[in-house]
Amino acid sequence: MEIAFEKLGGLVPAIVQDEASGEVLMLGFMNTESLELTQRNGEVVFFSRSRNKLWKKGESSGHVLKVHDVRIDCDADALLIRATPVGPGVCHEGYRSCFFRSLNRGGAAQVIAERTFSPDSAYAAANPQPAKDSK
Amino acid sequence: MEIAFEKLGGLVPAIVQDEASGEVLMLGFMNTESLELTQRNGEVVFFSRSRNKLWKKGESSGHVLKVHDVRIDCDADALLIRATPVGPGVCHEGYRSCFFRSLNRGGAAQVIAERTFSPDSAYAAANPQPAKDSK
Repeated sequence: MEIAFEKLGGLVPAIVQDEASGEVLMLGFMNTESLELTQRNGEVVFFSRSRNKLWKKGESSGHVLKVHDVRIDCDADALLIRATPVGPGVCHEGYRSCFFRSLNRGGAAQVIAERTFSPDSAYAAANPQPAKDSK
Repeated sequence: MEIAFEKLGGLVPAIVQDEASGEVLMLGFMNTESLELTQRNGEVVFFSRSRNKLWKKGESSGHVLKVHDVRIDCDADALLIRATPVGPGVCHEGYRSCFFRSLNRGGAAQVIAERTFSPDSAYAAANPQPAKDSK
């Protein structure tokens, strides 16, 4: 089927959900190549907007996302990747999910989750400067 | 906190998840005004890119999304709205979730859910032409 990559300049948003728990872990973007690699190799590859290149999730930390299945929405402009996260969490700030803060009506954010790992340790091996898995 | 609306020309992607079941229901986009309305009134309002205006989810069908809480990710460029869907489904094609198709490695889509309502009936009252809740 045709995926509507053109709506966002060649990208579609890709939600990652923990296949077992149902927790929404993160949102990234994919272009055609990253989707193809994700499906071919069974591990999630995004396209990093800030770095303007393919970005294998977990390339620094080892916290890869094993693909269970890929779903597409009615308008073919968003993806839902159901996956098994390898490691204690997907967030470069040390949480299981990137959505670790609640936003109140006044616009203030409150941390609602516990850290599951130390980001410094996880990223130190590969990078002297802790690498941010930047979307 | 500052939300990174500037990354997508004033919009951020907003994932909607069923608060009770954990099912990911849809993805829309929000600008500052739609987020403010969503939080103030407790029902999800998106910004429609195709219609270039605010779009109250359920304005035609009555299938509104009652907000449970709003979460924001580490980079402050994506929202997760945990909500209770009113009615049999959120998708204008008659499914509980807009992610009702699986995408295989060859790029073919397969419907993996049952229809929960008739889109023709749901949208007929308000619109002679079935209105598409277009993102």
